[in-house]
Amino acid sequence: MPTANKTIRAAVIGATGYTGQELLRLLSQHEHIEITAVSSRSSEGKSISDIYPHLRKHVSLICQEQDIEKISENADLVFIAVPHGEAASMVTPAILERSIIIDLGADFRLKDAQEYKEWYKLEHPNPALIEKAVYGLAELNKEAISQARLIANPGCYATCSILALTPLLKHDLIKADSIVIDAKSGVSGAGRGLALTSHFNEVNENIKAYAVGSHRHTPEIEQALKDYGSSECPNLSFTPHLIPMNRGILITAYAELKNNADSEKLKAAYENTYKDCQFIRLFDSDKEDSPLPETRFVEGSNFCDIAFRIDRRANRVVVLSALDNLVKGAAGQAIQNMNLIFGFSEQCGLEHLPLFP
Amino acid sequence: MPTANKTIRAAVIGATGYTGQELLRLLSQHEHIEITAVSSRSSEGKSISDIYPHLRKHVSLICQEQDIEKISENADLVFIAVPHGEAASMVTPAILERSIIIDLGADFRLKDAQEYKEWYKLEHPNPALIEKAVYGLAELNKEAISQARLIANPGCYATCSILALTPLLKHDLIKADSIVIDAKSGVSGAGRGLALTSHFNEVNENIKAYAVGSHRHTPEIEQALKDYGSSECPNLSFTPHLIPMNRGILITAYAELKNNADSEKLKAAYENTYKDCQFIRLFDSDKEDSPLPETRFVEGSNFCDIAFRIDRRANRVVVLSALDNLVKGAAGQAIQNMNLIFGFSEQCGLEHLPLFP
Amino acid sequence: MPTANKTIRAAVIGATGYTGQELLRLLSQHEHIEITAVSSRSSEGKSISDIYPHLRKHVSLICQEQDIEKISENADLVFIAVPHGEAASMVTPAILERSIIIDLGADFRLKDAQEYKEWYKLEHPNPALIEKAVYGLAELNKEAISQARLIANPGCYATCSILALTPLLKHDLIKADSIVIDAKSGVSGAGRGLALTSHFNEVNENIKAYAVGSHRHTPEIEQALKDYGSSECPNLSFTPHLIPMNRGILITAYAELKNNADSEKLKAAYENTYKDCQFIRLFDSDKEDSPLPETRFVEGSNFCDIAFRIDRRANRVVVLSALDNLVKGAAGQAIQNMNLIFGFSEQCGLEHLPLFP
Amino acid sequence: MPTANKTIRAAVIGATGYTGQELLRLLSQHEHIEITAVSSRSSEGKSISDIYPHLRKHVSLICQEQDIEKISENADLVFIAVPHGEAASMVTPAILERSIIIDLGADFRLKDAQEYKEWYKLEHPNPALIEKAVYGLAELNKEAISQARLIANPGCYATCSILALTPLLKHDLIKADSIVIDAKSGVSGAGRGLALTSHFNEVNENIKAYAVGSHRHTPEIEQALKDYGSSECPNLSFTPHLIPMNRGILITAYAELKNNADSEKLKAAYENTYKDCQFIRLFDSDKEDSPLPETRFVEGSNFCDIAFRIDRRANRVVVLSALDNLVKGAAGQAIQNMNLIFGFSEQCGLEHLPLFP
Repeated sequence: MPTANKTIRAAVIGATGYTGQELLRLLSQHEHIEITAVSSRSSEGKSISDIYPHLRKHVSLICQEQDIEKISENADLVFIAVPHGEAASMVTPAILERSIIIDLGADFRLKDAQEYKEWYKLEHPNPALIEKAVYGLAELNKEAISQARLIANPGCYATCSILALTPLLKHDLIKADSIVIDAKSGVSGAGRGLALTSHFNEVNENIKAYAVGSHRHTPEIEQALKDYGSSECPNLSFTPHLIPMNRGILITAYAELKNNADSEKLKAAYENTYKDCQFIRLFDSDKEDSPLPETRFVEGSNFCDIAFRIDRRANRVVVLSALDNLVKGAAGQAIQNMNLIFGFSEQCGLEHLPLFP
Repeated sequence: MPTANKTIRAAVIGATGYTGQELLRLLSQHEHIEITAVSSRSSEGKSISDIYPHLRKHVSLICQEQDIEKISENADLVFIAVPHGEAASMVTPAILERSIIIDLGADFRLKDAQEYKEWYKLEHPNPALIEKAVYGLAELNKEAISQARLIANPGCYATCSILALTPLLKHDLIKADSIVIDAKSGVSGAGRGLALTSHFNEVNENIKAYAVGSHRHTPEIEQALKDYGSSECPNLSFTPHLIPMNRGILITAYAELKNNADSEKLKAAYENTYKDCQFIRLFDSDKEDSPLPETRFVEGSNFCDIAFRIDRRANRVVVLSALDNLVKGAAGQAIQNMNLIFGFSEQCGLEHLPLFP
Repeated sequence: MPTANKTIRAAVIGATGYTGQELLRLLSQHEHIEITAVSSRSSEGKSISDIYPHLRKHVSLICQEQDIEKISENADLVFIAVPHGEAASMVTPAILERSIIIDLGADFRLKDAQEYKEWYKLEHPNPALIEKAVYGLAELNKEAISQARLIANPGCYATCSILALTPLLKHDLIKADSIVIDAKSGVSGAGRGLALTSHFNEVNENIKAYAVGSHRHTPEIEQALKDYGSSECPNLSFTPHLIPMNRGILITAYAELKNNADSEKLKAAYENTYKDCQFIRLFDSDKEDSPLPETRFVEGSNFCDIAFRIDRRANRVVVLSALDNLVKGAAGQAIQNMNLIFGFSEQCGLEHLPLFP
Repeated sequence: MPTANKTIRAAVIGATGYTGQELLRLLSQHEHIEITAVSSRSSEGKSISDIYPHLRKHVSLICQEQDIEKISENADLVFIAVPHGEAASMVTPAILERSIIIDLGADFRLKDAQEYKEWYKLEHPNPALIEKAVYGLAELNKEAISQARLIANPGCYATCSILALTPLLKHDLIKADSIVIDAKSGVSGAGRGLALTSHFNEVNENIKAYAVGSHRHTPEIEQALKDYGSSECPNLSFTPHLIPMNRGILITAYAELKNNADSEKLKAAYENTYKDCQFIRLFDSDKEDSPLPETRFVEGSNFCDIAFRIDRRANRVVVLSALDNLVKGAAGQAIQNMNLIFGFSEQCGLEHLPLFP
């Protein structure tokens, strides 16, 4: 792919969702990017900074018609952040000739169109394209990403879960059939659409589980754990919860230890897997009182923080991982993929420190 | 024990903590109660309604010296809500002659003084009293409670966890060694004491796990699951999390199903165990889209809401249970125990509906 | 009106909004009430406890068709909690013959139909009925309320503002043309309807003003201050703000002191005006460090807490008042009016203590 | 002062408070800065990234002894973020020879040592230094700042209030004696110290006023309004409120309009005053439905957003202004002052876009 020190023309389709505006925040501060077009079906003709006053003085773009043909003519790269089913219907071979596509939705994540249908309750609109897509989890798939023209940007829960568990499966330290993932997310993961489940008074001062046993990131996590971790088939339990906060995902993952496993080996597995990964921060797992990952430690940044604790009584490991669902779980990861594809420094435009408190 | 339609004289030691003031809220609306004394080491001589202005016009008591000898002389019943180690040091056989004691702390929960020492890092101050204490989980131990003079009021996490899992163990439907309990709590569970971990800016917009593998409610849960559920020894994994909200606990418990288990049998197990329990609300577990327990559904009330979902792919059951940590998890449960001991209706003074939103 | 120790048949039209469900919470715990019907246009045929699982085991009513004719045939009293314009269209003289009507909306608050049109952008649907309506602010209008058949239940901001300022105007202690009311409200005041302005992520971690100079409670406040305070025409400034919390209103009102005014006189004005008012709690205003009203002190209760501070440097008084917008600001006040009309104790069913924290 | 393209050595005294760590976040991303020392009395010898895990991989400094003599020897610039009274005791003429000092506390803000004593209840420790200090509100005092060696960085409430009102006083459009400022702040403004007033459960789901008529930013605001706005003496009313959110201040200021004032003139006054100010964003004030400043629009950024609305009925203007108390209200403004002193671009290191949601 084109290595470059130059400026890349980027476009964002679906720019007015939470993920879209986060892309604009990050791209507008990226030294190699010129944003050439933004589109939004609901806000055609409107100015981004009227929709999002926090972007005033920084982003002065008008939402165009959502026409990927037109948009791609003037873009080296198109980010797509639209509901599932729509991206796969949009992208054609001709467009892929002209522009790199990074899809932040779910359409190209699952390799099996049948599985897509089962979980998304929708016939895949474009199964032929699936095999061209590369799964954009940079820490585990860097080589393929840097050669790709079509990126399936991973789901937010999936990113956090896969990064937490892959090293332990890859190094054969846990029993694959014992994995339980208990996930907690802020509300922005559900998007800006209106729904009673995102109404302030229905979320605030509350915690709930949802989609128990049926969340769509489940097969995505299983697929990646098989691809990067272990070919054993882990039919895992995944339960997401909604937390009254804006941003952040925390994963608490449980698994039984294999006989050979001890703290040293687990630590080595993580260090070995992530030794060149600037966005992974491994927290100390030896001392009981050292800090654990918390969502506030990553807010606004592209970090994924990871730690584990061994529970000897129960012979289990508990892995904690945290990321910002809109950054490492979406827009930041998309830009990380872009950096790899265009030969920029992997961290370019992603050096923002977390905002605390 | 004394059956009664009359008025009981009750006292609260440790009245100015969150649990203490919640006791005052509930007791001052209980038709059979006269509060004869309140005490607080930190606030001796102060008026309760100066410390807690929300209680003005309802509670006009002055905090006395924390002297249980004196207080018990004028009380049929003494609630103790003080840090662990203190209640066990206070209570004597002479006091127990005069007054019923309900301890809302941890001193009499564990039957094994050695286990107490291991988990609480403290030599038990009064091991002889332990065997006189009755575990005050009314739904599972009603008979013993109604005969007791010393009640060990269960912990908040423990109550929610034990109520969620006991029916399944008792009816032999899950594998005892496969239990994982992922718990989430509002901040009031940590009390009113000053600590960086309760500072608004350190809790707000954040979720974190804490005390992974080492939380003190773990042996309490295990003990109760053995006593009321199954003698098999479940060395379970218990992980609490802190949620940015005032009140509420949600338990997400995972266990592998035994071969015979199906949805009907699980449902029957719950219905059978809780058929006479007014404070247990079983939510529909057959339909995927029926509501699940959420903490807001129980806020301010003595309910514990329970539902389960079977995850066939992973052959696990996921049990959700929710309660208000200050009511069913502390003060409400204490009053429920009081009602049983004094022969009042079990629901007396506990009919408050949840406050929503 | 009918004095009574007996049971009254009450119905709620618009039972599934936040105000409606709060009425159900309070009415279902009121000793003189049988709820005979609930209706909701959006939820006809559905069970209340399916819509609001927190009401399970307490409320088992099915939403009827929203037909006031039918409903009033079986109700001594009908509460109406629907959007403005609808109540005035529903109520007829024949219905008023059969049933007392308490309208929790805005249709009968303003005495001037022209003013209604200006502020509500709607021709009043039933101006003839306006003069039959009695403004239901019990602390200032008790006599008329107890004789009424049609109650205009005051707005939430209006209640809090009028109770804060009337004593000072009535006793001629402040300059009427100097009044500024800066109001802050939790989100439940905006209702359960879906709107971007109630989306969790748009409200959380934010404060904003809205409807500056144009909020519809402004003329209602001015009308009441003239009726109960002073005939001088106070064209006041009223600015509401949205606070990221569920319940509660805090009013910060500013006014210049008249020459004769001092702390003693202000205190006397409040004490005199509210001497028989069980739901008003006057906080100490002499000592700088005594507590001020805060919304958490009234949450879930029918109290309105009031205090003032004199700012000698600026020759102004600052009045703080706080209430729960769903209780004293809506459903609780409606029940207080009901109690007066039917000759029950004014506090009946409203003795709930605030829930803290 | 030294113009520069080079790297400046900066130190932070009081680095572990919320303001201190925000300085570190911003300084560590500033291209012209090398942080040579950090100190903290409470955390001497500890690593910043152990205290604040969100800074891992970005800040790897160890807290030194809080000895300004030593620290200044290796620093062109020292930021001081300590409780009031301490900075004035630290700074000596010799230190000012060596290093520029930017004090983020209150010690050098008030020009009158007697006034300092009245409001801060403390004899000023170093009155001789006061006259050397320059008030660091860049938008109104740029010339003096760029020549200064000792900066009094303005208070957070003061910055927001002064920027909101100065243009209207300077252009003689409002009556100086009619000003009321109703201020709302997130909790981080109260710092990281432990206090019941910052305990999560005492702040969450609540709004309250505090320090009514006695907040220490009052004389600071009055002094600046006289210096930059109008020599008329505005004894204004200032009331701060605590909002359950982490960051942000919103000012709602009220004033009576003078006869000549109209919307055009007010708009011109703001545009004229702030025409070269990159961090002021004037929101449209003509259209009733255009957005108003909200704290979420500025979170994490150095912007101060301002709008006004004219309330013709009451002949008042209502001015809304919002900023992030830790950025434009503290650390960001300090860096803005640094940029002016050292001849960097005023925006250098402060281009971060707001983080939303």
